[in-house]
Amino acid sequence: MNNNCIFCKITKGEVPCAKIYEDETVFAFLAHNPINIGHTLLVPKIHAVNIYEMPDETLAKLAPVLKKLATSIKSATGADGINIEMNNDSAAGQIIFHAHLHIVPRFKDDGFTHWKGARDYREGEMSIVAEKISTAL
Amino acid sequence: MNNNCIFCKITKGEVPCAKIYEDETVFAFLAHNPINIGHTLLVPKIHAVNIYEMPDETLAKLAPVLKKLATSIKSATGADGINIEMNNDSAAGQIIFHAHLHIVPRFKDDGFTHWKGARDYREGEMSIVAEKISTAL
Repeated sequence: MNNNCIFCKITKGEVPCAKIYEDETVFAFLAHNPINIGHTLLVPKIHAVNIYEMPDETLAKLAPVLKKLATSIKSATGADGINIEMNNDSAAGQIIFHAHLHIVPRFKDDGFTHWKGARDYREGEMSIVAEKISTAL
Repeated sequence: MNNNCIFCKITKGEVPCAKIYEDETVFAFLAHNPINIGHTLLVPKIHAVNIYEMPDETLAKLAPVLKKLATSIKSATGADGINIEMNNDSAAGQIIFHAHLHIVPRFKDDGFTHWKGARDYREGEMSIVAEKISTAL
């Protein structure tokens, strides 16, 4: 627990929320300022800033819950699809520095559009980039 | 294996790719038309259309690999952050119907902006929606 962390306080019941699910490892609640109604946040109970800090065991337990939530959010909201999103670091849009996954119900023609990249790879660049990442694993 | 599925063919080596990682359960390779250079796709080897169809054991094995990839993509590309995204169903932007997670390196001031919701919850609405989702779990 980090005493200055709003999500730690929510998982401890010290700050109220619209709770969806809780087990030993994870906690889920409705997001304020939702992208669409039903937009849910899934967080580990331990304080980890982002995915880089999450223990493997926590991630392994979280992932099946993510599926369960995606399925039930879709059904309960009557959504046509589900986006799952996780922003790690402020450059990626992270605002609360306790790891969290967004589960967002989507509706046909709800108007949200996906990013288009600026350029594709240059001749020969793709294998160089792949090699760099593999080496860093 | 689904014989009409491009991602099944990639994981079997029948279609070339810039491979990043492979184990018994998952496979990762560079995306074409990347949001940023280094944008990687992580897929289960078994054919599952989207998260709803992925076995729990597959999800549990995939999640720690996701962390490993996020960490190494950030370091290899010199990125300032990492977005993780998964589109389930065409209404959510899914184009290839074999489950896949996008791991996207982000850079300060790369210009990609996040969705803003149209409206917040009305008085009393939040607890009703939370209850509906919990009940569907």
